[in-house]
Amino acid sequence: MMVVVAYDVSTETPEGKRRLRLVAKTCVKYGQRVQNSVFECSVSPSDYLVLVHDLLKIANTDEDSLRFYKLGARYADRIEHYGRERSLPVNDVMMI
Amino acid sequence: MMVVVAYDVSTETPEGKRRLRLVAKTCVKYGQRVQNSVFECSVSPSDYLVLVHDLLKIANTDEDSLRFYKLGARYADRIEHYGRERSLPVNDVMMI
Repeated sequence: MMVVVAYDVSTETPEGKRRLRLVAKTCVKYGQRVQNSVFECSVSPSDYLVLVHDLLKIANTDEDSLRFYKLGARYADRIEHYGRERSLPVNDVMMI
Repeated sequence: MMVVVAYDVSTETPEGKRRLRLVAKTCVKYGQRVQNSVFECSVSPSDYLVLVHDLLKIANTDEDSLRFYKLGARYADRIEHYGRERSLPVNDVMMI
């Protein structure tokens, strides 16, 4: 199934930047980075549990927000895109 | 239906900040801001067309990325959240 991961973190601090880098690294094992802090991951049900578990080890849940949207197996019609489209480098924090 | 709007914009410039503010103002007519640049909007099919149309008038499609995820009418099981949860002020750009 397709899962969208939206990760809100302050990248004003080196720690926040580091966490975003680690989240990105983890997510792109399963898919792609579509925006600076949004990832689309193709996962099995067990992958999904591992992904959530791994991301919760990285995120600081007092400060960061981690939101998952499960689009299911037939997701093509559920996604619409406008504007800039690109693969973002996994290791970089985009300057935003 | 529930639609997730993910808006990626550079807030390094006043123009980018302004666009994010306007996108937020438009989206919260239909729902809530769940992260700095992620909104959950409850829309009818015709509302959705209006929402997309209005957001495309605000976004700079050369620079910004606007992504819509249609979760459908039965969306409760599709959303999972961890970490900081709050209503973000619509008019503010969060410092990220």
